[in-house]
Order: sequence, then C-alpha cells, then structure tokens
Amino acid sequence: MKIGVIGCGYWGPNLIRNFTAMDTCEVIAVSDLQEERLSFVKKTFPSIKRLTKDAADIINSSDIDAVVVCTPVSTHHQLGHDILSSGKHLLMEKPFTATVEQAESLIELAEQKNLKILVDHTFIYTGAVQTIKSYIDSGKLGDLYYFDSVRVNLGLFQHDVNVIWDLAPHDVSIMEYLLKLRPQAISATGVAHFDSKIENIAYISTYYDNNIMGHIHVNWLAPVKVRKTLISGSKKMIIYDDMEPSEKVKIYDKGVDISEDKEQIYNTLIQYRTGDMLAPQIDLTEALKKVTKEFYDSVNEDRKPLTDGIDGLNVVRILESATKSIRSNGKVIKL
Amino acid sequence: MKIGVIGCGYWGPNLIRNFTAMDTCEVIAVSDLQEERLSFVKKTFPSIKRLTKDAADIINSSDIDAVVVCTPVSTHHQLGHDILSSGKHLLMEKPFTATVEQAESLIELAEQKNLKILVDHTFIYTGAVQTIKSYIDSGKLGDLYYFDSVRVNLGLFQHDVNVIWDLAPHDVSIMEYLLKLRPQAISATGVAHFDSKIENIAYISTYYDNNIMGHIHVNWLAPVKVRKTLISGSKKMIIYDDMEPSEKVKIYDKGVDISEDKEQIYNTLIQYRTGDMLAPQIDLTEALKKVTKEFYDSVNEDRKPLTDGIDGLNVVRILESATKSIRSNGKVIKL
Amino acid sequence: MKIGVIGCGYWGPNLIRNFTAMDTCEVIAVSDLQEERLSFVKKTFPSIKRLTKDAADIINSSDIDAVVVCTPVSTHHQLGHDILSSGKHLLMEKPFTATVEQAESLIELAEQKNLKILVDHTFIYTGAVQTIKSYIDSGKLGDLYYFDSVRVNLGLFQHDVNVIWDLAPHDVSIMEYLLKLRPQAISATGVAHFDSKIENIAYISTYYDNNIMGHIHVNWLAPVKVRKTLISGSKKMIIYDDMEPSEKVKIYDKGVDISEDKEQIYNTLIQYRTGDMLAPQIDLTEALKKVTKEFYDSVNEDRKPLTDGIDGLNVVRILESATKSIRSNGKVIKL
Amino acid sequence: MKIGVIGCGYWGPNLIRNFTAMDTCEVIAVSDLQEERLSFVKKTFPSIKRLTKDAADIINSSDIDAVVVCTPVSTHHQLGHDILSSGKHLLMEKPFTATVEQAESLIELAEQKNLKILVDHTFIYTGAVQTIKSYIDSGKLGDLYYFDSVRVNLGLFQHDVNVIWDLAPHDVSIMEYLLKLRPQAISATGVAHFDSKIENIAYISTYYDNNIMGHIHVNWLAPVKVRKTLISGSKKMIIYDDMEPSEKVKIYDKGVDISEDKEQIYNTLIQYRTGDMLAPQIDLTEALKKVTKEFYDSVNEDRKPLTDGIDGLNVVRILESATKSIRSNGKVIKL
Repeated sequence: MKIGVIGCGYWGPNLIRNFTAMDTCEVIAVSDLQEERLSFVKKTFPSIKRLTKDAADIINSSDIDAVVVCTPVSTHHQLGHDILSSGKHLLMEKPFTATVEQAESLIELAEQKNLKILVDHTFIYTGAVQTIKSYIDSGKLGDLYYFDSVRVNLGLFQHDVNVIWDLAPHDVSIMEYLLKLRPQAISATGVAHFDSKIENIAYISTYYDNNIMGHIHVNWLAPVKVRKTLISGSKKMIIYDDMEPSEKVKIYDKGVDISEDKEQIYNTLIQYRTGDMLAPQIDLTEALKKVTKEFYDSVNEDRKPLTDGIDGLNVVRILESATKSIRSNGKVIKL
Repeated sequence: MKIGVIGCGYWGPNLIRNFTAMDTCEVIAVSDLQEERLSFVKKTFPSIKRLTKDAADIINSSDIDAVVVCTPVSTHHQLGHDILSSGKHLLMEKPFTATVEQAESLIELAEQKNLKILVDHTFIYTGAVQTIKSYIDSGKLGDLYYFDSVRVNLGLFQHDVNVIWDLAPHDVSIMEYLLKLRPQAISATGVAHFDSKIENIAYISTYYDNNIMGHIHVNWLAPVKVRKTLISGSKKMIIYDDMEPSEKVKIYDKGVDISEDKEQIYNTLIQYRTGDMLAPQIDLTEALKKVTKEFYDSVNEDRKPLTDGIDGLNVVRILESATKSIRSNGKVIKL
Repeated sequence: MKIGVIGCGYWGPNLIRNFTAMDTCEVIAVSDLQEERLSFVKKTFPSIKRLTKDAADIINSSDIDAVVVCTPVSTHHQLGHDILSSGKHLLMEKPFTATVEQAESLIELAEQKNLKILVDHTFIYTGAVQTIKSYIDSGKLGDLYYFDSVRVNLGLFQHDVNVIWDLAPHDVSIMEYLLKLRPQAISATGVAHFDSKIENIAYISTYYDNNIMGHIHVNWLAPVKVRKTLISGSKKMIIYDDMEPSEKVKIYDKGVDISEDKEQIYNTLIQYRTGDMLAPQIDLTEALKKVTKEFYDSVNEDRKPLTDGIDGLNVVRILESATKSIRSNGKVIKL
Repeated sequence: MKIGVIGCGYWGPNLIRNFTAMDTCEVIAVSDLQEERLSFVKKTFPSIKRLTKDAADIINSSDIDAVVVCTPVSTHHQLGHDILSSGKHLLMEKPFTATVEQAESLIELAEQKNLKILVDHTFIYTGAVQTIKSYIDSGKLGDLYYFDSVRVNLGLFQHDVNVIWDLAPHDVSIMEYLLKLRPQAISATGVAHFDSKIENIAYISTYYDNNIMGHIHVNWLAPVKVRKTLISGSKKMIIYDDMEPSEKVKIYDKGVDISEDKEQIYNTLIQYRTGDMLAPQIDLTEALKKVTKEFYDSVNEDRKPLTDGIDGLNVVRILESATKSIRSNGKVIKL
C-alpha cells in the first residue's frame, strides 16, 4: 500500500515511522506547510523522496492508495472530502471532524466510493484498554455503574480548539468503546481564562440507560500530569492509570452486595465486599503499530476497521454537544 | 465550661475525648438513643456520670453551659432550636442543618440570645488547610483560577442523605474558606443505583466572579480512597492530597505567563513556567483539638468562632442547591 | 488468666488494652518505675487497681498466673528469671534477651518448670506476614533466592542499644519465620556518628544453605519512613511494603527460566518471565490481639506458642553476631 | 572532530545520535562484529558511509581524531591501548577497564601522548546529580553521614560480568563524585544462583574518614525497577529516586540536633528536626548530550574532562575490590 502523509508536526512522524516499519506499506510522499518540518522528515526518513508544501500534490497523485491526515481539526473535512473523492483510503487523526455534519458527509462519501476510513483513536489500541475491554465483555465486572476519567496537565494552549477538543477525544473514545452505549444526554461545565474564549477546564457528564453515568474532567492548567480512569461494576472495579509505568490497570475484587433486609423492610441493605487486587500483565506493543496494521488490514481484507468513521462521528457528537452545553451554562443536551 | 453531648455514635466519642483533655471544659452528660453506645461511653469515659437516652435531659439541665450535637442532620434543627432556646451554646456537627431556612432560623435565634454556634467543619482546623490558606492570603498563588476536589471511597451507604450531604460538606467548607467567595450559580450531576433514590455519585460545579470555578466529585462507589484537591493560581499551583502520610500539601512553582505577542496580534501568547515544588512542614495537631479549643475560646472571649453558623449556612446552601440541580437534570441554580 | 504487666511505657499500654478486651484474661497489676506512667494507666484503665513502682510486687504475687515484660532489654534476663522461678508464664517483649546465653538460660528454666514463654515478635502475627508465609509454604514461590529488608526512619536514638537491637528484631524474626532456615554465617557493617559508640546505621548479611541469602538494612538517620521487604523465588517474587495503606503485599508472577542452550554450550540461557501482579486481601486484625490470644491459648492448651523462647533465641543470636561483626570490621561470624 | 565508533549494540547508537546532532563533530565510521548491527546503523544514520566489522579499520584511519568504544569491558584495555597508541582521543564506555592495572596503563599512555580520555559515567551529567552536587558543595547538607544506593530490576543476565560490574558503576561513580572522598576500605557480600559463578545480587560497603559510610545494593533478580539513593547530612537529607518522572530529587530539611544535656551528663541529647521538603526543578537535558559536548570541549580546550581516566580508575578499583571481597566471604579490603 502506497501512502501519502499530510501534516508532519508532532504526531505525523510517529505514523510515518510505524508505516515505514511495515513490509506491506510504503510512505512515498509527505506534505507540510512548514519548510522546517519537511527538512526534518528528509533527515529522519531519507527514503521518502517526495516532499511538498502542497497537500494537493498528494491528493492528486495517481500512485497513492491511502492518505494519512495529521493536521488541525479545522482542515479535516475539506482534506477528507478531497482524499475520498480522489478514490483514496483515509486514516484521519482524531478528532475526526469539527462537526457532526462533516463527519456524516465523509462517512457517506466513503460508503459511496467503497473506501475505508480509520480514525486514529490511538488509546483503543493500547494493551491497557484492550485488557479492560476483555474484562468488561467477559461479564467479570458485572453491571456497569459509571465511567470517570481525568486527563489534566500543564499543557500547551491551542488557539483553534478548546480543552475538550484537545484532550477529551481520548477519554470519550475509550468510554464509547468500553461501554458500547450511546449517551441519551450530555451536559458540561467549564471556564476560560486569560481573556480568551477558549475553555481551558471542562467537566463533561454523559447519561446512559440503566442509570449508567460517564464523567470526564479535562484541564490544561494543572501542575502535574494525571490520566486516571475509574470504572465501576457490580462485581469488580477498575482503576486505569496511564501514568503508572508498569501496573496501568488494577482490577479490584470489591463491590456492593444488595440483600433484602427482612427486619427493616423499607431499607435496602447494602454491604461492601473487599477482596484481592489484580494488576494483569499488559501487552506493551506500541499502540500506533497496531493502528497502522489495522488500517492496512481493513483495506486489504475489505472490512470495517476497529475505529471507523462511525466511531469518529460518535466521539465528535459528544465533543460538539459538550461544548454547546458549556456555552449554554451547562444546559442538558438530548441526543 | 460544663458540656453535654447529644449523640455518641462514630464521631461523638472523639469530641468527648478532646473536651475531656481540656482543663477548661468538662463533659458532664451524654445522651444517645442506643443503650449500647451509652455502655461504651461509660466504659471509655468512666468520669462521665450522667448517661441518658433522652436528649431533653441534657437540653433542660440547668448546670450545662454548652451542648455538642452529633446526630443525623435531620434532627439538627429541632435539637439546635431547643438548645439555643434553653440558653446554651451550640457545637453542631456538619452539615449544619438540612435546609437553608433551618440554618437561618438557628443563626437568628443565637443572635437574639447572644449565644455562640460553632459548626464542626473539622478540615478547616487541619494544618494542611491552614497552610494552604496562608499561601493564598499572602498572595503567593496570584489570581485564583479554579478549585477542584475529589473525595471518593467504597464507603457506607447512608439511608437518610445522599453522597453530597455525606461527603461534600468537607470539600465545600474548604472551598468556601479558601476562596472567600460566594458562588453566583451552581449546577450538579449525579446518579443513584440499586433501586435507591439516594445519589451515590455526584459532580458539583460552582461559578464565581472573575471566571473562577469550583468542582467537587463525591462518590461512594470507588475501590480506593481518594481525597485530592487541586488549586490553581496565576503564580503557583497546589495539590492537597489528604491520603499522603507526610507530604499532604505540595506547592508547585508552575504557572502560565501571558505576554503580548506583537507579531501575531490576534493571539494571546501563553507560556508555561515550571519550577520547584515545595512540600511545607504541616502542623500535625489533631484538628478536633483545635475545634474544641476554638469553641471554648469563642464563648469565653465572646467572639465569633472560626466556623460559625454563617459558614454552616453557606455550606448548606451549596449542598441544597446541588441536590436540587441534580434532580432537575443538572439545571443551573442561581444564588 | 490473671496477668501482671511490668513496664508501661510506649508498648505496655497496647498489651494491657488487648488483654483487657479478652474475656479469658484480666490484667490485675501493673508496675513501672515512673509515677507518671502509673497515673496514665490509672486514668486509661480504671479497672486495674494494683499499681506499683516495684516489679517484685508483681513477681511475688500469688494470685498472678502470667507476667508481661515491656522493659528495656538489659532488664529482660533478670526479670524473666525471677518470673519463671516464681512459677509464672512469661510474655517477653522483643528482643528476648541481651545475649544468647541469657536466652538459653530462660528457655531451660521454663522447661524445667513447665511454663510457657512467648516472645512478642508482633509482625509474625500480621495478616501480611501470614499471607506471605502461606504463599511460601504452598510452594508457589518456588525455590527461594533471597530475603532483603529495609527498615529506616528518622527515629529516636536509644542510648542503651544500637539500631540493630532496636529495629532489626522485626526483620530478623520475619526472615527466620519465612525462610525456616538457620543461617550458617553472618556479617554486618555499620557506623556510629555524633561521638557515640552506638551504631545508627547497619547492614546485616546472612548466609544459608543452597545459596540463599538474607540482607537487612536498618537506619535511624533517614528522612522518610521505609519498611520494605523483597523476597524472591524461582516462580514468583514478593514485595511487602508495610507503609502501603492497603496493598501491603504484592505477588509478582515474574521470574527466571533457565533452559539449556544447545548452541552455546557453556552458557546457561536465562530468560525472564513477566506476568500478572496480585495484591491479595490481607487480614487487618490488629496483630497484638492475636499475640495476646496466642499467649492465653498456648498456656490453656499447654502447647508451644507460635513465637516461643527458641524463636526469641534465634533472633538474639543474629543480633548478637551482627553487632560483633560490625565491631570486627565486618568479619564473618560462623554460626 | 571526526569520530569513529567501535561497538554499536544497545548504547552505541545513542552516542552516534548525540555526536551527529553536534555542529562540531561528525561520526564518519562505525564498526561492529555483527552484520545486523551495521545494517541498523546504515538505515538509522544514512550519512555514515564507512561501516566495518574490523575495529582496526577505525583505529588505523588517519582521518579520525577520536574514537568512542562501546564494547564489553573485557575488550576495553586492548582497544583503548591501540586507539591511544595511534594518537586518537578516547571516549570509553563504563566500566573503564576490567582491572585497576589496565586503567593505570591507559591513563599513563594518554598522558604520554597528550590525549584525552573521557569515561562515560553518564549519570554524572544528569540534572539530578548536578543539582545534588551543588547542594553538597554549597555546604547546605552539612557534614555528610552516609550514601546509600539501591539499583535493582529483573534485568538481563550478562555472562561476562557479575551484577557489580554491570550495575554498580552508576552508583559508584555518583558516590565518588558527590562525596569527593576515596574509601579507605571496602567489603562486599553477594551470591550467585542458577549454577552460575556470576553473582546476581551484591551489597557493597565502603568506609571513609570521619565515619562516613557508603552502601550499594545491586540486584538482577527483583520484580520491579528501583533506582533510589539516600544521602544524609547533618543539616539536610536527600532522596534521589531516578524512577520518579518529575520529582527526582527531594531535599528534606530534616536532621539531628545534638545538644549538651546538663542534667543527664552521660547522655548525648539528640533531637530530631523536621521541616519542609523541596523538590527543585531539574535540568532535563539528555545527559549524553552533555557527555558528547564535554568530550569535544575537553579536546578542543585541551583540558581534563569532567569524568576522566582517573575517575574511571577510581570506579574500577571499587568494583574490583568489591568482587574480590565477595569471593573472600566478605573480607575487608584495605585501599
């Protein structure tokens, strides 16, 4: 598979590196608006000969089968549209698009053209998330109660998107993947500082059937890095701490037993169970290696990739609704 | 000061122990509805001779100067009313009352009678909170941006109050004390499980002037205990982790510098500073020892105690509004 | 069982509290050289009527069945001798005695008189050590390779004993209990400061059959408290961190596989296995509650207690040899 | 400066990368015995044209000014001798040589030829060690009491050297650099397993003037990675934990006050001070970048590099003596 890459800032080189390491794929062209980034690519990946400042050179190439887009989200829809229109498969950086409408139009176009879209929700491909997924799907967690995630650090401010569009795609994609549920409603609170209109702190609540709840806290203004998720079920509870070097996933055999209380008939008797904690061995393969393999395989086998346009759309819907809710003072948005 | 104690479950004995250790105070009577608790008091504090199942015995005693109330919140208003009416000072366990209206009526009654009310917001008296307070008041943190607190554990369910009334009084009282601001609006989200109407998870957002924001996450369904607060200012940021055995307060010399960017006139240039972290030595005196001393001193010196009825009222107002917001699907409540 | 307690400083009250809570035992007399400690006992345990400054009052009482000794180690032998001679069972604080010879004489005397000696190696009775013990005894750890323990803090200097006699009894008793082996040789290094002859840092190495090794680091001059033990076997490895609030014991399914390497015949091929980590639920019962129960039960059932005089002697032998080795510049002492 | 690199396994490519990034240096030739490693270099550093299996090609090149040696220690002396003899400067991987005698002969040869030797004690160039150094040198720690270092992990067994020669060079070089003292004596204990003669666990004690002591624990058989150093002075104490992502160095304002006790004239009164903890900001520049710069600068400025042959020799002397001590059952080796 011959690949072109559009955008070569922070994340693009990681995708190039992983595609370059595959026997089945070859990156043959890279574009970036900045000369300096092209020089970096030339030096780091001397085998890539076609370097251009014009994305159209890649989009219009007849010898390119698939295009990887690692540019700001505001450009995703136009680039995606042109790439799919020119008959090429698409690996789109997250968030998929800037609006739900844009996501829907790309999905429709890909279907018409029978092309694949993979949205790079990288965390879905980590050993940690895969391990948690297998626990939930096996029923070992029991009924789910909530998903709570915190992702904060003293990060770079972006000028084009708020902290929700910057950090929350990770948590939202993980939440959607693990719960396998679509929220019925969303509300969010947050705030901007520094005379900016761009929120730098946000709290997102999502509501599901059966009283399941989700909550995500994203924040650019914290002194330390935190990436911590709690997932609680009726049988077991999980803490996923991505900052832990080795024991990223801890599964607690703790929970709540509800029994009927004959004597005090009006009260539900709730008893706590406590038990062992297990930190299972996690597959440490670089997630992006699996992303690039999944992209190739889904094209080659003509099947839906693990994180496709629909998944990208579902994430964008939550990001869009959350931002809308913040700007309506936390109003609940029905989905 | 001769003291009576009403309610001797989990917390009451700690107050008795601390008053007993003071030269200036004497606990002379204790009441509890349960015989078994009175036996415990008799064995543990053999010098207390008057043990009764009837709180009225204490309220009506002519030789008692002050009464400590450690009973469920639903009883606070009636007991407080009777105690103040009988001319006795009042140390009330938190939360102060079950409604704002009740709090206001007790405050008014105490003023009429020239009696003191101390609400036991214990955390305010800890070395950790006092250290943070002195940093904020000295201006070393700069302008405040937000207060974010998490208090979760696999705790006992209470049947009479939800997780907000159970756990959030700690965080709300700390937030009010440190920010010295009253919120303009509140919203909250949360959920109940187990066919109960009692919320076991809740997220509270509070909005202040100058884009300052507060957020509190309380949760009875987590596998581990977390008590962690982030406070961010323009000059420094603080992490207060009450589960840390020694370094509970960490002050990070990190922040954000905003400078005017001449070249790109439309963008605010935001730069991150990183510097040292300081974990100052914390006074480890038991907070409750300071609570009991403050109660005696405020009566003796005829002055407002550090955490008085107004502070109790301010906390109750937030708890009440937060619960109301949850039950209106996260509606913003203006204050 | 009627019990007298000699010595009521830091640890004695804990033993009194636990014996007092038992239905089968009664503490009827306490002695201490300091009037102030006797006042404390009188106030804290008002049911104990006989308080004396003279240990002989307890030793000579005809209505006392057993005596608990919580005094400095230099007094242990004489007190133990007198207690056993007067026909009373003995619960001796650790370290058992100041010399091996003293330990042997007490053991012999107890045997002659058919009396029980329990040495208070408290850690043996913790849920953590019992859990580790069951793992080792079940064979799940495989062949043992080493036991490594660190116990350090900014502690109080003692004037009568060095850091080995103060802190190492804990680690040595745990090591002896878990390994079920007697060392063949011991060496130790260490140093004294502050113009004192009393070592405040020490490192003890113990050598066993089959290349099993033990090592203990004890230190009064560290800025933080550390109580951490590594135990490594051919199948699994354990970290026991007593400072962890909940997950004190972690069992790592990691190890070393040795296979024959056909190609490079002179090299042993060693491969690392890595797997899950399990933190089993630990019994959190206060260890001292089990110590006092074991003392009563061993007397009542006329059987050897879990930690008897022989165990006390085995610990003293290592402490004595380690101190001797330090003062001979680390010379190996054969046992 | 034109550079040749001999040995391109795990560490060599990092040195090539850092020299390549410098404007003043150019790596023009690399040798390795394994074809596969040369292919890796060719792919990763396409600008390096001369790849050879024969180190002599590099040593004998007339256009090479300096040679970097990243090969097993058993080859260091011969290679170093040939490189210096051919008039080239030498950057030698640690440990410098396999014996003290070899180290001395290389130092002598370099002096005769007026060539530089830099031994790659990488940790000396880290921000963490430089920060600690500046604290000690400023006198803020007061008189030093001890240096205690633990470096353990489930590491790869090496067949040619024991755990001391593999892991301890890091700790020994840091200890030597910080204490600025040469030990008067050394003893060590340790053990081999798996029918091997190669020790996989070792404990090294070093003795200095003024009762200062050093201790290093190195271990290939631990389930988790530990890199932790305690340094204690009369005024402050330091914990250096290299596994901490951000707060690697913690400086505790804790210590010991010794005052004369008039009443109890025979006792030294020792009081503990406790105070703030400071985690200073650490320079995060890659240490190896500073190593390569120091090598160039020392050649260019014709001066002693920060870690020269003498430093390498001092480390080798301790490694050699420690291994000798283990094999003599912990005998003290006078230096």
